[in-house]
Amino acid sequence: MEFSAQQIADFLNGEITGNPQVKVSGFSKIEEATPGTLSFLSNDKYLHHLYTTEASIVLINKAFELKEPVKSTLIRVDDAYASLALLLSLVEKNKPHKTGREDPSFIASSAKVPEETYIGAFTYIGENVTVGKNVRIYPQSFIGNHVSIGDHCIIYPGVKIYDNTKIGNHCIIHAGAVIASDGFGFAPEGEVYRKIPQIGIVEIEDDVEIGANATIDRATMGKTVIRKGVKLDNLVHIAHNVEVGENTVMAAQVGIAGSTKIGKHCMFGGQVGVSGHIEVSDNVQLGAQAGVPNSVKSEAVLLGTPAINARDFARSSAVFKNLPELQRTVTLLQREFEASKNK
Amino acid sequence: MEFSAQQIADFLNGEITGNPQVKVSGFSKIEEATPGTLSFLSNDKYLHHLYTTEASIVLINKAFELKEPVKSTLIRVDDAYASLALLLSLVEKNKPHKTGREDPSFIASSAKVPEETYIGAFTYIGENVTVGKNVRIYPQSFIGNHVSIGDHCIIYPGVKIYDNTKIGNHCIIHAGAVIASDGFGFAPEGEVYRKIPQIGIVEIEDDVEIGANATIDRATMGKTVIRKGVKLDNLVHIAHNVEVGENTVMAAQVGIAGSTKIGKHCMFGGQVGVSGHIEVSDNVQLGAQAGVPNSVKSEAVLLGTPAINARDFARSSAVFKNLPELQRTVTLLQREFEASKNK
Amino acid sequence: MEFSAQQIADFLNGEITGNPQVKVSGFSKIEEATPGTLSFLSNDKYLHHLYTTEASIVLINKAFELKEPVKSTLIRVDDAYASLALLLSLVEKNKPHKTGREDPSFIASSAKVPEETYIGAFTYIGENVTVGKNVRIYPQSFIGNHVSIGDHCIIYPGVKIYDNTKIGNHCIIHAGAVIASDGFGFAPEGEVYRKIPQIGIVEIEDDVEIGANATIDRATMGKTVIRKGVKLDNLVHIAHNVEVGENTVMAAQVGIAGSTKIGKHCMFGGQVGVSGHIEVSDNVQLGAQAGVPNSVKSEAVLLGTPAINARDFARSSAVFKNLPELQRTVTLLQREFEASKNK
Repeated sequence: MEFSAQQIADFLNGEITGNPQVKVSGFSKIEEATPGTLSFLSNDKYLHHLYTTEASIVLINKAFELKEPVKSTLIRVDDAYASLALLLSLVEKNKPHKTGREDPSFIASSAKVPEETYIGAFTYIGENVTVGKNVRIYPQSFIGNHVSIGDHCIIYPGVKIYDNTKIGNHCIIHAGAVIASDGFGFAPEGEVYRKIPQIGIVEIEDDVEIGANATIDRATMGKTVIRKGVKLDNLVHIAHNVEVGENTVMAAQVGIAGSTKIGKHCMFGGQVGVSGHIEVSDNVQLGAQAGVPNSVKSEAVLLGTPAINARDFARSSAVFKNLPELQRTVTLLQREFEASKNK
Repeated sequence: MEFSAQQIADFLNGEITGNPQVKVSGFSKIEEATPGTLSFLSNDKYLHHLYTTEASIVLINKAFELKEPVKSTLIRVDDAYASLALLLSLVEKNKPHKTGREDPSFIASSAKVPEETYIGAFTYIGENVTVGKNVRIYPQSFIGNHVSIGDHCIIYPGVKIYDNTKIGNHCIIHAGAVIASDGFGFAPEGEVYRKIPQIGIVEIEDDVEIGANATIDRATMGKTVIRKGVKLDNLVHIAHNVEVGENTVMAAQVGIAGSTKIGKHCMFGGQVGVSGHIEVSDNVQLGAQAGVPNSVKSEAVLLGTPAINARDFARSSAVFKNLPELQRTVTLLQREFEASKNK
Repeated sequence: MEFSAQQIADFLNGEITGNPQVKVSGFSKIEEATPGTLSFLSNDKYLHHLYTTEASIVLINKAFELKEPVKSTLIRVDDAYASLALLLSLVEKNKPHKTGREDPSFIASSAKVPEETYIGAFTYIGENVTVGKNVRIYPQSFIGNHVSIGDHCIIYPGVKIYDNTKIGNHCIIHAGAVIASDGFGFAPEGEVYRKIPQIGIVEIEDDVEIGANATIDRATMGKTVIRKGVKLDNLVHIAHNVEVGENTVMAAQVGIAGSTKIGKHCMFGGQVGVSGHIEVSDNVQLGAQAGVPNSVKSEAVLLGTPAINARDFARSSAVFKNLPELQRTVTLLQREFEASKNK
């Protein structure tokens, strides 16, 4: 399918600079674009490609000022990245998707699954499962007993969801993710550890996306909660009884220890670790690999282990690099001072 | 099923304060308990909830002294957390569990699997596999050729166990865990790496629990060994030829590099990394995100990368935060000293 | 099967010291070798075992000088580890492997899969998949639509490969790995995040090995590329639009953030993290747990977060341990200096 710059600009409520009749049939990255594709500029790192790109159309922010002439037709919008997302979503939504059941699959007779739901081959649906409308469950997934899945969800291949989990609407769970495995709870008994059976559940609210091979443990008692709009990247670990606040985003390989409560709108970089039984306030940003041992009481940008104010961390790290020199200076000063005293 | 405080106290050999006739039919966390449930207090962080909880019964340590009156019936025991574990285990044990084979599953004709073993749909059991009594193997698991599994084991959905692995009794392996994949062994040959085929095995002793999506690699030669009572959390990585000592506990996302030997009763926090070809003594505790480059010769509590004594790490981290100030002080002192010399 | 030292030496072009008629039928580690096995010495840490080992044959580097007599027959070669790899590969190659399709499996009618390809039970092969010769796809794997797999590949159980992925020849993908799941891309829209559909692909070149439960995300647009000869260990995460250069090796739990370009022949230790949108030059070595926030412009050996020259890191870490003492020294010096001024 082809669309003209005019059609796209009308749809996005954008302003055209250049030829409104030029047509595109696909998307491209600005640095490797070919004619007939639409690209975008949102990260200044890629700015220099704007003047050489072969893209027929480039989405760009209204505020942007050209320094040189460009070959492409520009569509100026409030937020180029958001507009791109909108266009891509539209294309995605119009793709045809499978419906119905592939053989063989295992669906317990007590499960309530609409006829048109895509159930991939080798998928297992347990007792009393309920599935909403417009859901796709890819092959080899496991949906335990009494799990409920809302509307418009996508469960990718090989996802494993243990019993009693509740999943909201518009959720996406990527391949290999494990939801509601046992929390890591043991009571020491002399030399050995006695397992604490984990009888709680996991509840995932609407609009949550969970990355490939991520793990979210069920609560010891009560529930582990992933609030509305949360996005978790691949290989993230969420321990038992954790609560992750609305619209919080965690990059790959982050780990949150048990019973910790994370606020809303937080952003955690990759490989961040947060200790158990603490609270992290709303809007907290943790840089990659940060380690948080204690509660974070208010909005902050933190880095390092133990995590401190990010600017302080950067400054201290600069000194860290020269610590041997600092130490030599102090030793020398000490020696000279002693010598001067003895004079 | 309902139980009275008296029945529970008798079972736990505990002492009742309050009404021994009050009955409960479920468990709850102390901060969100409802009447008719039993709760527990073992972490002082939750102490203030004791005086307001709606739980009908609270398990509590004998040593605990009340500061205010409580509404709940208390059952005093030596270790509230261990008693809770005992009660929960009892409930768990009495739950009905599936037995027998779900269709379709794949069981090699040479495999020795008791008729009553639960084999979930889409599970694959290879040649010459042996399975003990009272084992449950959930759907979509893969048990390679010549694998042996002891008695009373639970293999959750989608676990993948490569050929020749030995698993003891009372082991639990959570969804998506991979046991005995190839160790990461390559010999450099000019510019490229030649794969070293990994012909060793993995041996897992009794009472081991392995978390969701954890990975344990087979040995190059010989074996990777997980000793009795070890508990590994989600996404833990154990490399080839590692030995993990009895009753050692590792939190999520820990990684142990090849040929390292970890002692007994160690406790590793989340995201800890331990280098290859070293030894870590018994009873070593590593705080979250610690990195251990060299052998740890005796019992210790370590933190940081490279890991040092935890108290030293805490103190040094406090100074780290103020390094720029320390450097300024030194520079100033140096300048002043120079000036004073020149006077 | 048995081989004599003479046969093995002829094959490896090695020189024999000792009895050339001694025979072996298996491999062993030098420290736990039994008679009738062949062992090797390549790491000096294990040197002392040479003089006591029960191995009938030991592969050893030509350059090695004996300090004491040994019982074993020695075969001296240029590189003992590479020779071992060669022998093991030979044994591996001659093992019989399954061919053909196990029931039930799901193979779309448009897929082009040679009759003799091993397709394990419960494996799913989507539309228009093409598979080369001599490929093994173990049970419970998922091969999405339009995926191409070259010759001589091994796909272990439960691997999930999303649509449109291209895989070269001689690739090995271990159990549970997820290839081409969606990149982690969202556009903020007020309080919430709008998903950016990820329409790019993953391309994996020849001779790549990918560890268990590793994840490689598809590109937003364009492709995520894993070049020839790359080896990725378990639980590694490669984000969207990353390019990993030829023969680069990453140990377990490494994470590479989006759009970063990693050079050739790099070696990354376990749990390393690399930020997004940067470049890491060829031949860069990153020690375990290093965190790289900015581009690395030339060959280097780095450690720490933020990563610095490894030797500088080691020296600074030595001072870090004594920071409280350094601070006390400075405070004291300052105080004494003030006192001396006031005299």
